[in-house]
Amino acid sequence: MDRLIDKIIELQNPTVAGLDPKLDFVPEYIKEECFKKYGKTLEGAAAALLEFNIQLIDALCDIVPAVKPQAAYYEMYGWQGVRALSETISYAKSKGMYVITDGKRNDIGTTMEAYAKAHLGTTDIGGEEVEAFGADALTVNGYLGSDGINPLLDICKSRDKSIFALVKTSNPSSGELQDRKIDSKTVYETMGDMCESWGESTRGKYGYSAVGAVVGATYPEMLRELREKLPHTFFLVPGYGAQGGGAEDAKFAFDKNGIGAIVNSSRGIMCAWKKEQNATERDFAAAARREALRMRDDLRGVIGDMKAL
Amino acid sequence: MDRLIDKIIELQNPTVAGLDPKLDFVPEYIKEECFKKYGKTLEGAAAALLEFNIQLIDALCDIVPAVKPQAAYYEMYGWQGVRALSETISYAKSKGMYVITDGKRNDIGTTMEAYAKAHLGTTDIGGEEVEAFGADALTVNGYLGSDGINPLLDICKSRDKSIFALVKTSNPSSGELQDRKIDSKTVYETMGDMCESWGESTRGKYGYSAVGAVVGATYPEMLRELREKLPHTFFLVPGYGAQGGGAEDAKFAFDKNGIGAIVNSSRGIMCAWKKEQNATERDFAAAARREALRMRDDLRGVIGDMKAL
Repeated sequence: MDRLIDKIIELQNPTVAGLDPKLDFVPEYIKEECFKKYGKTLEGAAAALLEFNIQLIDALCDIVPAVKPQAAYYEMYGWQGVRALSETISYAKSKGMYVITDGKRNDIGTTMEAYAKAHLGTTDIGGEEVEAFGADALTVNGYLGSDGINPLLDICKSRDKSIFALVKTSNPSSGELQDRKIDSKTVYETMGDMCESWGESTRGKYGYSAVGAVVGATYPEMLRELREKLPHTFFLVPGYGAQGGGAEDAKFAFDKNGIGAIVNSSRGIMCAWKKEQNATERDFAAAARREALRMRDDLRGVIGDMKAL
Repeated sequence: MDRLIDKIIELQNPTVAGLDPKLDFVPEYIKEECFKKYGKTLEGAAAALLEFNIQLIDALCDIVPAVKPQAAYYEMYGWQGVRALSETISYAKSKGMYVITDGKRNDIGTTMEAYAKAHLGTTDIGGEEVEAFGADALTVNGYLGSDGINPLLDICKSRDKSIFALVKTSNPSSGELQDRKIDSKTVYETMGDMCESWGESTRGKYGYSAVGAVVGATYPEMLRELREKLPHTFFLVPGYGAQGGGAEDAKFAFDKNGIGAIVNSSRGIMCAWKKEQNATERDFAAAARREALRMRDDLRGVIGDMKAL
């Protein structure tokens, strides 16, 4: 997790821009251009997503440390969309951004090894080691226990990557299972404890391990409680903005040095132009940058400086 | 789930062939051909997977009702691998097979809607409805509660599709979370109850809903217990063969009419030639067929006939 934290401190900005480019969010002029070239096809849609992402990355890469493409919004456009995901990851990395693929992958050990190679590692092809998607981090679901996490830990260690396991998700029904009690602890606390223990051998210079946790800003009390109980677990915090969480909610995710978490905004940044007076869709990238700066300042207002070691 | 059960009864075979084509499993002669054409690249690997799958599907389609491609083994080969997944799904459907994409997808509501469109539904592209992957069923993880399941139910109803939610997985560490007790019930029982309730409005002519459950053959006692408690939930049963489960274990998944479940074998079928005396890799498809027939007879030996209505 050190590479991500270094970058957060360098830019004094603990936010990650979610790249969830469903076509509804992509400006008409980009879509028209791509449909003219490729038709109203999966290929045309994928070309539009990629162009949208490239312009967003260009507008954000010097002020936002990380992007989080959500796999679902690429799979929705078939393998052509998944190609756009791959190209988005490469482009964001070429611009120095840390890339968290939000795939919430989960499976038994041998299969999880394949996901680990797919998203964070390399694949053996007739003796050549080839990178498939090559992100810096991947979100995962720990429902299957440690078998499904161990293959990722090896790659986190050998290639300086990280994972974020779902602990307490931001959606309204997350409590149906996650808030239920096992002995005296909730399911999400149990999962949080697992993250601490999975990460134990991967702690970096800031004290945080390579095994982070997803904890929603929409449940600030739980965020506060988990921050206290999981001192070595870095948090990925969704739910800011469109889902209803604010800086006052997200602040509980941070430690006394102003680190310990990264807060996501997807629609808030991607669709910022829609909330600006007199903005047109052609201003989408500039508006995204303005919103990202506003969000950075909003968070810094309550957290203060992110302190280097 | 009716379409799947009809097909199982027609072929008197409750098995699904897992298509998890990591390159190690693909015969050398196929790889050599593809590497010659495309190099030792993701493209070359993907071409080899597809050729392997096509030959397996040709050898199995008149005796096995369904295939289950595991997404991880395609993502491992980049977007090119995901294209091979897409082409595998189309080919299997063209041969009349029911296709279960094993992706164990999970997310919040809006994002799950994107996964639902991606794998089971259609995507709107400038007013055109286009199928992205077009499988018949998708495996999912219910950790996020009903928000993450509801978008799938709509598509299950409108397009006659199904999902399988993880309940008790086949791996050794599955108990770390799944066997823990919430009040007097384990996490897996709680998840099983959720499946019954999610599926309630989607029951078909056999009494089974569109919301199935994944329950491993490696835990036969739990399989027996869940079969009793979840009378409307169809089971997808991994763990037969390479993972150690046998027909005597899997039989608990079935009801008195010999239906209620489909048992998966991946490596057992794909790599059957390795266990046959005097077989070479060129016999892989014929050996897969022989193993599939053996497995069918093995299961029928303990379950008996699958009875039509």
